[in-house]
Amino acid sequence: MIGSLFAGHLGRVAEVSVLTRREEHARALNEHGLTVSGRHDFVTPVRAAADPAELPEPELAIVATKTTELEAAAGRLEGVWPGAAVMTVQNGLGAEAVFPGRRVISAVTFMSGTRHSDAHVEYILDTETWLGPSGDTPFELVEEVAGLIVASGLKARAFDDLRPAQWSKLIFNATVNAVAALSGLPHDHHFAERERLGDLGNLVFDLVEEGKRVASAAGVDLHEDPWEMNVLATQRGSRHYPSMLEDVEARRPTEIEHITGALVREAARVGVPVPLHAALYSLVKGREASWEPD
Amino acid sequence: MIGSLFAGHLGRVAEVSVLTRREEHARALNEHGLTVSGRHDFVTPVRAAADPAELPEPELAIVATKTTELEAAAGRLEGVWPGAAVMTVQNGLGAEAVFPGRRVISAVTFMSGTRHSDAHVEYILDTETWLGPSGDTPFELVEEVAGLIVASGLKARAFDDLRPAQWSKLIFNATVNAVAALSGLPHDHHFAERERLGDLGNLVFDLVEEGKRVASAAGVDLHEDPWEMNVLATQRGSRHYPSMLEDVEARRPTEIEHITGALVREAARVGVPVPLHAALYSLVKGREASWEPD
Repeated sequence: MIGSLFAGHLGRVAEVSVLTRREEHARALNEHGLTVSGRHDFVTPVRAAADPAELPEPELAIVATKTTELEAAAGRLEGVWPGAAVMTVQNGLGAEAVFPGRRVISAVTFMSGTRHSDAHVEYILDTETWLGPSGDTPFELVEEVAGLIVASGLKARAFDDLRPAQWSKLIFNATVNAVAALSGLPHDHHFAERERLGDLGNLVFDLVEEGKRVASAAGVDLHEDPWEMNVLATQRGSRHYPSMLEDVEARRPTEIEHITGALVREAARVGVPVPLHAALYSLVKGREASWEPD
Repeated sequence: MIGSLFAGHLGRVAEVSVLTRREEHARALNEHGLTVSGRHDFVTPVRAAADPAELPEPELAIVATKTTELEAAAGRLEGVWPGAAVMTVQNGLGAEAVFPGRRVISAVTFMSGTRHSDAHVEYILDTETWLGPSGDTPFELVEEVAGLIVASGLKARAFDDLRPAQWSKLIFNATVNAVAALSGLPHDHHFAERERLGDLGNLVFDLVEEGKRVASAAGVDLHEDPWEMNVLATQRGSRHYPSMLEDVEARRPTEIEHITGALVREAARVGVPVPLHAALYSLVKGREASWEPD
């Protein structure tokens, strides 16, 4: 869905091709182009294939899969398009490490949409994508890509250090996704309520505090306060369904390993106790195990 | 189900009548008697009614409802059968307090069964029921009731102080029920696994530790170690479905307020922090809220 939003928009200002997993998906895109509806409304012709050998080598490959499919995506790009830079757009931490030897741009995005079919995506939340260099990647490349994204009609910002933004989103995601998945609640007013013993906002607040202590010990000065992000989001009254809640309801593997798991491992590395995140980590992993035959 | 196991067995050694909520339930019992199958196999004739005025005043009233129905049950006995002692058989803490002015016997039971119909219960786990005096209730009465239960074919033990047993079960129940309800796992081997980061047994162990610190601060010397109860139960390989897991799957109100809620409030009273139980408390309450129209 994020990948389609990028491809649909960028196809208006650059030559875009789409590497799909399924042949039918590529066929649908080649036949009908990619329709963007919602906040924007247009159709972009794109070239698509399920085999990278059928596509021209790009200057930049955008990898916006779910983290649960990231390893598979990285495997398909191994040895392919050696000159291309890679932009990773993932939840959690560590996506950059699966593309060794390449120039990598790290990105986190706050935009959202709904995938209606193989060739149609709806653009819903028109919030920013934040980009930063990973490793030795020159900042000029990051600025160039951010400029291209903005020219295409989406919102983007280049940071010379993405970690403050990435960590704000990591702490927010680890908290909101796991609490939603376990409580069954969409991201609604319960997440900000802290009046009485047992109010869910107490737990959300404490989870954010744990995350902030880890960021601080890791030397990261957060870009935004995840608690304020939480309060603001629930005040909109939008009752957003976090993807991890959708995943547990559909009994799909969740991104827990790459979000809360990443935070818990980073906490262990810097020696900060995170008993609440560890509790949620094991409960969501337990939920995944409950779907497996024993 | 627990009430039917008591009524069916005690009807063989004493005069038993059953106060039901529904008229049909009383009718079925009056017509067919109460069938016990499973570990025991017999039919006991019982007298039943949905109105206490239709039943003779007993010496002892056994109240074995779920805690979610306890207030309603107490309301029906208010001003009725003033001379009768009450035996409460509930999870959690505090059931005794809803019968002011009566002689009360506190009980916790480890036996279990399955209710097949209004007039048929299956006796499955033939483990003990533990009884103790509440307030000024004489211990002799507790011993007499325990003796009657044993004479009826069930297992029972009288304690002059039930709190060590009650608290062992409270900590066990608060831990196992909430973890099962949130993870979706029956009480199986995952609850005892503590090898790696993220193993569910780590959380279970830490929850038990929190509970033990509360018991200790409340001056209670536990009868059994809840962690050992947990390991033993999961080693049987029985994959027991805790009632709170059944409740969340059926989207019914759970006993969270009377089990984990009681533990969290007692912890606050004695000044012991229980962040993990408080986290599970708010998550299960969140799950209950997720079923309500917003």
